[in-house]
Amino acid sequence: MTPEQFRTYGRQVVDRIADYLATVERHPVRSTVAPGEVRAALPAHPPERGESFDAVLADLDRVILPGITHWQHPSFFGYFPANASGPAILGDLLSSGLGVQGMLWATSPACTELETLVVDWLADLLDLPPRFRTDADGAGGGVIQDSASSAAVVAVLAARQRAGEGRHRLYVSSQTHSSLEKAARITGVGVDNVRVVDVDPETLAMDPARLDESIAEDVAAGFVPTMVCATVGTTSTTAVDPVRRIGEICRRHGVWLHVDAAYAGVAAVCPELRWLNDGVAEHADSYVTNPHKWLLTNFDCSVLWLADRAPMVDALSILPEYLRNTATSSGEVVDYRDWQIPLGRRFRALKLWSVIRWYGAEGLRAHVRRGVELAGHVAGRVADDTRFALWPWHPFGLVCFRPLWPGMSTTDSNAATMTLLERLNDSGALFASHTKVEGHVLLRLAIGSPATRHEHVESAWRRIVAEYDSMRAEPR
Amino acid sequence: MTPEQFRTYGRQVVDRIADYLATVERHPVRSTVAPGEVRAALPAHPPERGESFDAVLADLDRVILPGITHWQHPSFFGYFPANASGPAILGDLLSSGLGVQGMLWATSPACTELETLVVDWLADLLDLPPRFRTDADGAGGGVIQDSASSAAVVAVLAARQRAGEGRHRLYVSSQTHSSLEKAARITGVGVDNVRVVDVDPETLAMDPARLDESIAEDVAAGFVPTMVCATVGTTSTTAVDPVRRIGEICRRHGVWLHVDAAYAGVAAVCPELRWLNDGVAEHADSYVTNPHKWLLTNFDCSVLWLADRAPMVDALSILPEYLRNTATSSGEVVDYRDWQIPLGRRFRALKLWSVIRWYGAEGLRAHVRRGVELAGHVAGRVADDTRFALWPWHPFGLVCFRPLWPGMSTTDSNAATMTLLERLNDSGALFASHTKVEGHVLLRLAIGSPATRHEHVESAWRRIVAEYDSMRAEPR
Repeated sequence: MTPEQFRTYGRQVVDRIADYLATVERHPVRSTVAPGEVRAALPAHPPERGESFDAVLADLDRVILPGITHWQHPSFFGYFPANASGPAILGDLLSSGLGVQGMLWATSPACTELETLVVDWLADLLDLPPRFRTDADGAGGGVIQDSASSAAVVAVLAARQRAGEGRHRLYVSSQTHSSLEKAARITGVGVDNVRVVDVDPETLAMDPARLDESIAEDVAAGFVPTMVCATVGTTSTTAVDPVRRIGEICRRHGVWLHVDAAYAGVAAVCPELRWLNDGVAEHADSYVTNPHKWLLTNFDCSVLWLADRAPMVDALSILPEYLRNTATSSGEVVDYRDWQIPLGRRFRALKLWSVIRWYGAEGLRAHVRRGVELAGHVAGRVADDTRFALWPWHPFGLVCFRPLWPGMSTTDSNAATMTLLERLNDSGALFASHTKVEGHVLLRLAIGSPATRHEHVESAWRRIVAEYDSMRAEPR
Repeated sequence: MTPEQFRTYGRQVVDRIADYLATVERHPVRSTVAPGEVRAALPAHPPERGESFDAVLADLDRVILPGITHWQHPSFFGYFPANASGPAILGDLLSSGLGVQGMLWATSPACTELETLVVDWLADLLDLPPRFRTDADGAGGGVIQDSASSAAVVAVLAARQRAGEGRHRLYVSSQTHSSLEKAARITGVGVDNVRVVDVDPETLAMDPARLDESIAEDVAAGFVPTMVCATVGTTSTTAVDPVRRIGEICRRHGVWLHVDAAYAGVAAVCPELRWLNDGVAEHADSYVTNPHKWLLTNFDCSVLWLADRAPMVDALSILPEYLRNTATSSGEVVDYRDWQIPLGRRFRALKLWSVIRWYGAEGLRAHVRRGVELAGHVAGRVADDTRFALWPWHPFGLVCFRPLWPGMSTTDSNAATMTLLERLNDSGALFASHTKVEGHVLLRLAIGSPATRHEHVESAWRRIVAEYDSMRAEPR
C-alpha cells in the first residue's frame, strides 16, 4: 500500500471510527451471534489475489460489527470498563505508523524515555511515592505492561528472586483476582503454594490477623513466605484490603507486598479518593493499575511500579550477543525488555501521553468523578427500592445488588437472578455482569465509560426494575 | 474528545503517517540522541489543564521523531525486520477504535472467530499441517500472541503439563533464541535444567545425535525430558535445525517438540522455501512464526499453533465466577484467555486479516521473494570481494559476513569490525547489527522491509566497502 493509498483509506477508517463512536448507542450492547456464525460468514480460505480495502470495510459492517459486544456503548456496564478515547486511539495510531521496537533503549530511545516520563507523570497524578519514580540512578521505576496479569507474573518473579531459594508461598484472599493463581501456575510456584487468607465477611477485605497467622505457620513449617497480594478494588465488589496493616506484617516477615489496584488505582487522580492507597507509600514493593480500564486509554496499558527494580531485572535479564550495545553497557539507560515477559515492545507510551495531555489532570479527575457520581446515583435508587438488596460498598464506579425473590430458596433465587441478567443482556439495551458473594448471585453495574450519562444509568435502572416485575408477574 | 474532534485530528494523524512513510528515507536511520535527551526535552510534570492535540503533534516532530530509530527506513538492516504496512496499520486502528475485549468468546464473538479464521488462513498459506487448524471439535488450534517469547512460555507450560510431575528438562542449542532460557526462568524450570545441545560447527544446526544422548542421559539420571526447541531460522545466522530428525527423537522419548520459526516461518508462503518446515507436519507439537517480523503486519502479531491444545488449556485455565457464561459452559467456543498469559486481549486479528486480504497470497509471496532476491544480491557482492568473508548460509533475507583485517588477531579484528559497524550506524545512511560465530564478530544485514529496493542494498554495500577502505587507510 503506497503512502497515498494509506492516506485515502486512512481517512475512510478514521471517518468510520468517528461515525461508530457517534452512533454506538444504536447497536444492541451485546452481540447476538451464535457460535460459528461470524466465521461462517467469511471465506474459508485466504484470497490468492489482493483485494481492495473497500472489501475489508464492507465486511466490517456486514460481519464484524454484528459480531462484537460494544464495550464503548454508554450502556455497557459489564465486568469493568475498557475505556477508549480519541487521544488514546490516535496515540496508538501513531505507534502503529512509526512501527518502532522498544525492546532496548538503543532500538528507539524515545520509546523508552517517553515511557519513563509518562509513568512518572501518572505516579504524580496518583500521588504515588517518589521511590516508584524511574530515575536512572534510583532503585525504582515504572513500566507499561499489557495487563495486570502479566504484571502479577513479573511481581512474583521479582519477589521470588529477592526471597532466594526455598519452597515459596504466596498469600492472596478469596477475593484476589484469578490472575494471581494463574501467575503461581505460570511461574511454577504452584497452586498448592498459594494460601488463601480469609476475608472479613462484611467488607470482603483480607483479614490481616489471619494473614499473620498463615505466614507464621509457613515459616515454622519451613516454607519461604514470598509475596502477599493485597487488592485495592477487587474484581467482584471493589473491596479494599487493609494495605497498611498488611504491609506492616509483610515488613515484619520480609515478604514482598504486591498491590493489585488494576481497576481502582486510577481513581487516586481525585484527592478525595486517595484513601484507597493508604499504606502503599510506606509498604508496597510493587503496585499495578490499568489506565486501560477506567482512565481513557485503550487496552493494552497496565502500569506496574516497583520500589526496587533490581530483583526483577535479575530475574528476567539475558543479554545475547546480538543485543549488546554501548548504551546498555554504560548502565545509563533503562532497557525495558528486562521488565517484562516478551522481548519486543510497542510504543505504548504514546497513547498514555496523548491521553494525559489532552485531558490534563483536571479532565481525568472529572472523568473519574462522573463515574463515581453516576454509581452513587444508581446505588441510591437500589437502596430506596425494597425489591432489591444493595451491596453496601460502592465507593468507585461499581454497584452490586441483588433482586429479592420472596419465598424462593437461595438456589432458586440465584437462578432467577441469572435469568433476569440474561433477559437484560438479551434485550440489547444494556449489558451487565454478575458475581457471587456468600452464596448469593449479585448483579454488577460497572459505570465508567466516557459516553455514559445520567440518562443511561436511569434507563438501565428502569429496565432492570421492569424486567424484574415482569418475571415476578409470570406464573411460576 | 468528541467524534467530530476525533475525525479532524484523526485525518491529521493519518496525513502525518502518510507523509512519514513517504519521506522516512530522509531521516538518519539510527537516532542520534544521547541518554536522557528525549526526556529532558519534555515537561517533568503532567499538565493540570488539557492541551490541544496540535501540541502533541508538534512535540512529535520536535522530540519524538529525532528520538526514534526508523525501523521502516528502507536502509534499516538491523536485527530482523519489523514490517509495518498500510493495511496492518489500518487494521490496528480499527481494533483501537472498536475497543473490544476478546478474553472470552462471549465478550466479543467476532474477535475470537476472526482470529481462529485468520490463523487457519495463515496455516493454509504456509502449508502447515491440518492438525494445527482451529476447528472447535479438533484438538489443535492457533492463536495470536504478542511475541515468540510469550509463545515459548506457553509452549513450556503445555509441555510441562503433558509431562506430569518431575524434574523437567528443556533442550535447546547454543543458537536458540534467548527467550527459551527466559521461559525456563519464568516458568521455574530453571536455567540449570536447560541443556544446551551442541551444533554442527559448519551449519550451526543442532546435532540430533547429541540431543539423543542428552535425553538418554537425563532419563537415566531421573529427569523428565519435557521439551525440545528446534529453530527454523536462528536469530544469529538463520540456521535451520534438522526438525525431522529431532522430531523422530522427540517422538521416541515422548518429548514435546516446539518449533521456533519466529523469523523464517513466514517464508513458507513461497512453495520453493517450504523445505524449511521439513518434519514439522509429522512431529511438531507447537510452532510459532511472527507475521510482525517479515510478513507486513505491525508488532504485535506472533502466531502460535498447537497440535493438541488441551495441555495448554489445562495449564492456564481458571474460571472465576464473574467470567462464567453459557457459551463457555457449552464447550462450543474457544476462549483465548486460556491460550495466553494475560487475561485481556486486543482484536489483533483485524490487522492480519487486513494484510492477507490486501496483499493476497500472491502479494505476500512477492514480498518475501523480493527480500530473498535482494539478500542474494548482497551475498553475491560479498562473495566476489576478497576483502570480506561471507557466511555461506543465506537462504532467507539475512546475509552475514565479516571484513578481513590482514595481520590482526581475532580480538583486534573483532574490535575493528565493531568500530566499522559503529561508523556505519553513526553515518545515518544505514543501520546494521552484529552477531558472533565461533569467536568472530559478523556483520548482519537483514533485508525485508517493503520499502527496500535494489538501490538501497547497493548503496549500503558501497558504504560498507568505503568505510572499510577508509579504516584500512588510517594509520594504525
